[in-house]
Amino acid sequence: MSDDARAIQDQIDGNHCFGCGPRNDGGLQLKSFFTDDGRTTCRYEPPPHQCAGPSSIVNGGIIATVIDCHCVCTAMGHAYRLEQRPIGSDPKLWYVTGSLNVRYKAPTPIDMPIDAIAEVVECTEKKTIVRCELRSGATVCAEAEVIAIRVPEEMYRQ
Amino acid sequence: MSDDARAIQDQIDGNHCFGCGPRNDGGLQLKSFFTDDGRTTCRYEPPPHQCAGPSSIVNGGIIATVIDCHCVCTAMGHAYRLEQRPIGSDPKLWYVTGSLNVRYKAPTPIDMPIDAIAEVVECTEKKTIVRCELRSGATVCAEAEVIAIRVPEEMYRQ
Repeated sequence: MSDDARAIQDQIDGNHCFGCGPRNDGGLQLKSFFTDDGRTTCRYEPPPHQCAGPSSIVNGGIIATVIDCHCVCTAMGHAYRLEQRPIGSDPKLWYVTGSLNVRYKAPTPIDMPIDAIAEVVECTEKKTIVRCELRSGATVCAEAEVIAIRVPEEMYRQ
Repeated sequence: MSDDARAIQDQIDGNHCFGCGPRNDGGLQLKSFFTDDGRTTCRYEPPPHQCAGPSSIVNGGIIATVIDCHCVCTAMGHAYRLEQRPIGSDPKLWYVTGSLNVRYKAPTPIDMPIDAIAEVVECTEKKTIVRCELRSGATVCAEAEVIAIRVPEEMYRQ
């Protein structure tokens, strides 16, 4: 169990991701945190250009990006926790997205922060299923499941 | 039936979308075209910062964004075609994403163009189901279904 209070992404080296790579200056720099109940949260404040057709709501692809990164990092953090060792410690544990299923329930206002709340609902050696809700204030704007697949470290060392 | 050779997005006014709004300078400016067989194609060349964890492959959220916009614009274009009138003509036909289901089959190299190929597989008055394949060269990197929902024009006039 890791007691490190930093975001999951800030405990992992070598993540260049557009969604959640800490040093990707053109990216969203998403941050995911474990909460006391074992779930994870990620708050994101979208800039105006990340809108949908109507400029007042958030683009569906951006919502998918938040959910994807937050859920895959949740799967990664969860895997380290199962091994009772700090996130990012050796040997590294890497995951990629196997599938992403998002149901858009309500428009997501762009002028408010959005919160993704995720939890692991199933976990085997090779894959982790993560369920996620995306909220704007009290409104659930999207619900999703992500299947994260464990991959060898070589994939990350190119 | 529209014979306009321009992209679907370039025939529609008032689309501010991060993924496919023609005037969204911070967006992807995706372009979708009908082909002779009634399917649609969208080619996108991702910039380096739109990578995944490994910097050599495309971010899953960007792939979702390409698929989402391309499929919703396919649904929109298809709706005008069914009414045998030019895309973007009055009365306007607008769609939003109801759900997005992406299965990632293979890593998508970032240094090559990606091609999304879509087709409408079901269409009722209220919703259109679009199936999409995302290819890098001859490799199918992702398969997806999008349910696009018809919405009133007021949603776009805020």
